[in-house]
Amino acid sequence: MSRFFSEKYKKLVPYTPGEQPKDTQYIKLNTNESPFPPSDRAIRYASEAAHSLELYSDPTSSVLCEEFAKAVGVSPDEVLPTNGSDEILNFAFMAFCDKDHPAVFADITYGFYPVFADINGVPYEEIPLNPDFTINVSDYCGIGKTIFIANPNAPTGIALSVDKIEKIIASNPDSVVVVDEAYVDFGGESCVPLIHKYSNLLVTQTFSKSRSMAGARLGFGIACKELIRDLNTVKYSTNPYNVNRMTHAAGIGILKDADYTAKNCAVIMENREFASEELVKLGFEVTESKTNFIFAKHNDIGGKTLYEKLKARGILVRHFEKPRISEYNRITVGTRHQMQALIQAIKSILEEEK
Amino acid sequence: MSRFFSEKYKKLVPYTPGEQPKDTQYIKLNTNESPFPPSDRAIRYASEAAHSLELYSDPTSSVLCEEFAKAVGVSPDEVLPTNGSDEILNFAFMAFCDKDHPAVFADITYGFYPVFADINGVPYEEIPLNPDFTINVSDYCGIGKTIFIANPNAPTGIALSVDKIEKIIASNPDSVVVVDEAYVDFGGESCVPLIHKYSNLLVTQTFSKSRSMAGARLGFGIACKELIRDLNTVKYSTNPYNVNRMTHAAGIGILKDADYTAKNCAVIMENREFASEELVKLGFEVTESKTNFIFAKHNDIGGKTLYEKLKARGILVRHFEKPRISEYNRITVGTRHQMQALIQAIKSILEEEK
Repeated sequence: MSRFFSEKYKKLVPYTPGEQPKDTQYIKLNTNESPFPPSDRAIRYASEAAHSLELYSDPTSSVLCEEFAKAVGVSPDEVLPTNGSDEILNFAFMAFCDKDHPAVFADITYGFYPVFADINGVPYEEIPLNPDFTINVSDYCGIGKTIFIANPNAPTGIALSVDKIEKIIASNPDSVVVVDEAYVDFGGESCVPLIHKYSNLLVTQTFSKSRSMAGARLGFGIACKELIRDLNTVKYSTNPYNVNRMTHAAGIGILKDADYTAKNCAVIMENREFASEELVKLGFEVTESKTNFIFAKHNDIGGKTLYEKLKARGILVRHFEKPRISEYNRITVGTRHQMQALIQAIKSILEEEK
Repeated sequence: MSRFFSEKYKKLVPYTPGEQPKDTQYIKLNTNESPFPPSDRAIRYASEAAHSLELYSDPTSSVLCEEFAKAVGVSPDEVLPTNGSDEILNFAFMAFCDKDHPAVFADITYGFYPVFADINGVPYEEIPLNPDFTINVSDYCGIGKTIFIANPNAPTGIALSVDKIEKIIASNPDSVVVVDEAYVDFGGESCVPLIHKYSNLLVTQTFSKSRSMAGARLGFGIACKELIRDLNTVKYSTNPYNVNRMTHAAGIGILKDADYTAKNCAVIMENREFASEELVKLGFEVTESKTNFIFAKHNDIGGKTLYEKLKARGILVRHFEKPRISEYNRITVGTRHQMQALIQAIKSILEEEK
């Protein structure tokens, strides 16, 4: 770092995104992208928008907000679009956490939470998941801190029921509860309807997974008007034009193609069940995933070794060098063909290990 | 604001972007956009990129960095692309300012600087420009604070020569100097070559003005490797995929069409001289603008009145309700046709006022 870098960041360890290889053609199962392209309409709208890039994007994102609000059953002033859901999560750490309002989240969850906390100077507590990676709800009840829950959780894939999350929200009336629903469209249950009941609930979602728009960068916050207003204050104090015109257009396009999204999610869930069963047959332990990835370990081969051997065979999965989960790999659910290739590769690796 | 909003932001006054009218067809001369569309290649590349939005964008933006670095004569590791230049400016306030390193900038300059300072809890000093809106260079020499200079300045349009800025940089070896070159392509002189001489210089640029890409959101920081590394630490701790795939592609496209950009800038400079002369003939005082806007006042009509009367005639300009400049309007330079319409409208307004 330079000698000019602010003292407050000198110990900062940034987040490491999954590998984005440029050279080789991998079967890419490492960053939970969709194996399906965006809908034709999303592509068409984005291409049309490219013709008028000389004009700023609408800072209020009004058309997109209307479409999204309609899709999730809330009002346009109860949503806020951001440059990916990382931005809305960072805004939440900025707006609702500080030295007097520390953050709390699971020890095994989205690895960006501690980084957001650190860059914002927010103290945080990590609560260990149960040995089976489920959340112990009572750990969070009445804790009085700003709570971040990924639901379904990553990288475990395990979902918490809405009534359990509601207990946490109801028991912390003076703290904001952020429910990160990046993976909710693959069998999870959304907390969005609860925003009309609880003024301390912020739900975040992304268009990167079920809507095939990871490369467009579009996330949303969904909450009561007052929380959205606070988050807008942060947005207008950092980057008012945070969502570009093409992403606006693509987002509107994919929202009008809800059937396409639903069909893709159904296929991914089928492929998840297929691949999970095959992995179990091969001796893997897999968690009960409600996401577009599988979290799996095998007693005969280390997590890192499997990751490396798959990579050598042209299949990229995600391995986390982290306590409790270093024997696991997180495997994105792709097409049936990709899942078959994965199973074949694993079979041959296990043969080799014998 | 909600009762959950962090105490530290309770007094925050966000930035107000220029009006982005949706209903009426205005001649839009209020946000310094280009009157020309992006190049055909920029549009084509962006449209092609829309077909693979299911994949994350390259967090290192490597191809775009190579093209941009080549265009400005530096190495790829001396540049950092961001979601508009507002993002790189915010990163600079985050990385290089704090309570021990306050910020300093002119009293009349980009109105976002004090907001960035406030949201980051950075104390700041505003140094008055000279009565003719020029910068008094000696005010900044050896000041020992993190300096932000918009060059050419906005909303005044006035440029400072590189040798004067170099004095400021050289006399503050222990502080970062940020030179915001959003408008440099319309007759200003760039400080980019100085990054190889001074490790405390950060230059910021944008694709929103000369490159007709305001709606794509693309800005850049240009500095020595060490400063870029610090800024990357901030980026990877807030939003690693900050630039989307379509903007990457459009940016690469417009960089390959440097002739198109140069031609558009030449036309805008011609139109600026045409409109400035006409305004002077009508009794306006105009500053010597090296940007794509004109900063003008008239003794017979108040700044706000002129703004309102132009708006009523379907022409939108930008008026700032701010001490020292409330009698002025900032008028974006558009096509010759738009400038003629502006002059005609002003003639009829002045007639009315008599």
